Amino acid sequence: MSKKVTVALDAMSGDHGLSETLPAALVSLTELPHLTLLLVGNEQMIRDQLGEQLAKWGERLTIINASQVVEMDETPSKVLRSKKDSSMRVAINLVKQGSAGACVSSGNTGALMATAKFVLHTIPGIDRPAIISPLPSHKGHTHVLDLGANIDSSAEQLYQFALMGSELVRAIEGIDNPTVGLLNVGEEEMKGNQQVKEAFQLLSDSPLNFIGYVEGDDICMGDVDVVVTDGFVGNISLKAMEGITRLIVSSLKQCFSSNLLSKLSAVVAMPVLKAFKQLFDVRKYNGASLIGLRGIVIKSHGSSDQIAIANAIKVAAVEIENDVPNRISSRVEEILAARGRV
Amino acid sequence: MSKKVTVALDAMSGDHGLSETLPAALVSLTELPHLTLLLVGNEQMIRDQLGEQLAKWGERLTIINASQVVEMDETPSKVLRSKKDSSMRVAINLVKQGSAGACVSSGNTGALMATAKFVLHTIPGIDRPAIISPLPSHKGHTHVLDLGANIDSSAEQLYQFALMGSELVRAIEGIDNPTVGLLNVGEEEMKGNQQVKEAFQLLSDSPLNFIGYVEGDDICMGDVDVVVTDGFVGNISLKAMEGITRLIVSSLKQCFSSNLLSKLSAVVAMPVLKAFKQLFDVRKYNGASLIGLRGIVIKSHGSSDQIAIANAIKVAAVEIENDVPNRISSRVEEILAARGRV
Repeated sequence: MSKKVTVALDAMSGDHGLSETLPAALVSLTELPHLTLLLVGNEQMIRDQLGEQLAKWGERLTIINASQVVEMDETPSKVLRSKKDSSMRVAINLVKQGSAGACVSSGNTGALMATAKFVLHTIPGIDRPAIISPLPSHKGHTHVLDLGANIDSSAEQLYQFALMGSELVRAIEGIDNPTVGLLNVGEEEMKGNQQVKEAFQLLSDSPLNFIGYVEGDDICMGDVDVVVTDGFVGNISLKAMEGITRLIVSSLKQCFSSNLLSKLSAVVAMPVLKAFKQLFDVRKYNGASLIGLRGIVIKSHGSSDQIAIANAIKVAAVEIENDVPNRISSRVEEILAARGRV
Repeated sequence: MSKKVTVALDAMSGDHGLSETLPAALVSLTELPHLTLLLVGNEQMIRDQLGEQLAKWGERLTIINASQVVEMDETPSKVLRSKKDSSMRVAINLVKQGSAGACVSSGNTGALMATAKFVLHTIPGIDRPAIISPLPSHKGHTHVLDLGANIDSSAEQLYQFALMGSELVRAIEGIDNPTVGLLNVGEEEMKGNQQVKEAFQLLSDSPLNFIGYVEGDDICMGDVDVVVTDGFVGNISLKAMEGITRLIVSSLKQCFSSNLLSKLSAVVAMPVLKAFKQLFDVRKYNGASLIGLRGIVIKSHGSSDQIAIANAIKVAAVEIENDVPNRISSRVEEILAARGRV
């Protein structure tokens, strides 16, 4: 049996708040028998909406009151200053205190990142946290970071991203020495900007399984386990990929409903179309990790529904089980010590 | 009737050379009655492979001999120095001399950009050329630049890209005042790196129809005509989008061939699947423009087949008909003069 895990869920977060976080909580408790959930938010509202469910789950479901909510458009600095009793902040505090092994929030990314960094601090040797998530590939998936925590990243920071990404994949996927690629405009060594060229050198000299530069289409190719880039490029590429995926799926739907004959063929093809739609259901990929912190923080998409949020809770559980922050911390210490000795 | 247009085709270029460029030439001559083609390359080889076709097309098809070929992996500096009689260079020379209104090449992008810049020079007021191409959207397509001609771009260069992209779309799409968006990680004004923030200011103060920041998924959304970014981000995003498109299309194929029942439904759905496949046929989008030069140069994808190359020739013809470089030049002059007066 898996070891017990406790996740703090920012129940007030996301575009839909309690109406999606609470059903997600109940789904997760059913699916993951080793899970305990701390629901953070307005206690009265949560109690009212849960009704009999609260008593049913006993010790596995606890409400932690928080009087404030972080809005989607608030600046990180304002949130840090004036939202000290927000559901987001309280959820992160629970991780800091050790009451929860991870927290999950669908709230404002900038505020989540700033609060997590302020409360939990980064791992020694890591300058800034990064956002990492698996993306679909021909062979399963590829983990890409940074997906938007940072705008400009130095070569040293890109190197740190590689180190963290590699260890995360090692921990949760059980791949012994994950391959790492550095995102660039071409595979030739002469190409790329200054940061990328310097990062190439740092990575070549590192103990990581660095395979060199990769291009945008290598993300989905599946021949590399971890793809490293700065948050500006990572975030824009991710959203561009999401945009064209939505376009393709909606065009397919349109093609199948353009006339009577195509509508009939859609009926025949329905099982196949359903299987296809599930393959590219973005909710399956919900739950990006803020790595580089002394604790586990999972960012769920703002527009998440219960299925998406339940998936983010699953990601949190897997990272707790595999002790991801401590593993990253040990690996960073080991590599930094080795660099010091050179 | 459209005015007559002459296009110089780098017949030796691309992964498949003459075996795809020559059929593409014949297709284009058939489809575009106002087109004259100058086939640039090894005269004997072209003559042998064309056979009777050469005489058939009379003055509309001429061979221009060139003794060298630019290889895909040669550096731009080496090509500039030692490939002065390459099919690529000779084709660009024909544009310079006014013998052709445009040239089309599926050759090495770096070499093409460097040679075009060296031979044709940039438009006064434009620091560096950029690569622009339409990408599919929910409402037709969105023109995106720079797709990889430049690695780092200053705010002033991003501003110039916007100016050129806007005028190109005005010229070829007949949109009076195209909307322009600046690619960023969020729509809030506080986000983004230094170049992007400065470019935002320049664009806000310009006469362009600037709608502010757009995100990666806005490329396919269709609510903006021109999306501006630097070549590093543009190239990586483009390739990431190509990668996931291939993944989705191949997954759909797999879903339809997973068992006997799904194979049967594929037979029924065949007309729909064909229509869908055509929608996302990348060959339809082949033909990226190198803009900012005193002449028209169209880059065709290295792996292009005849259908893709014929499409690039069509793009060249449209740009000649609409006198794109002169229109960009006038617009740049007008705007620079207005800026000087402020």
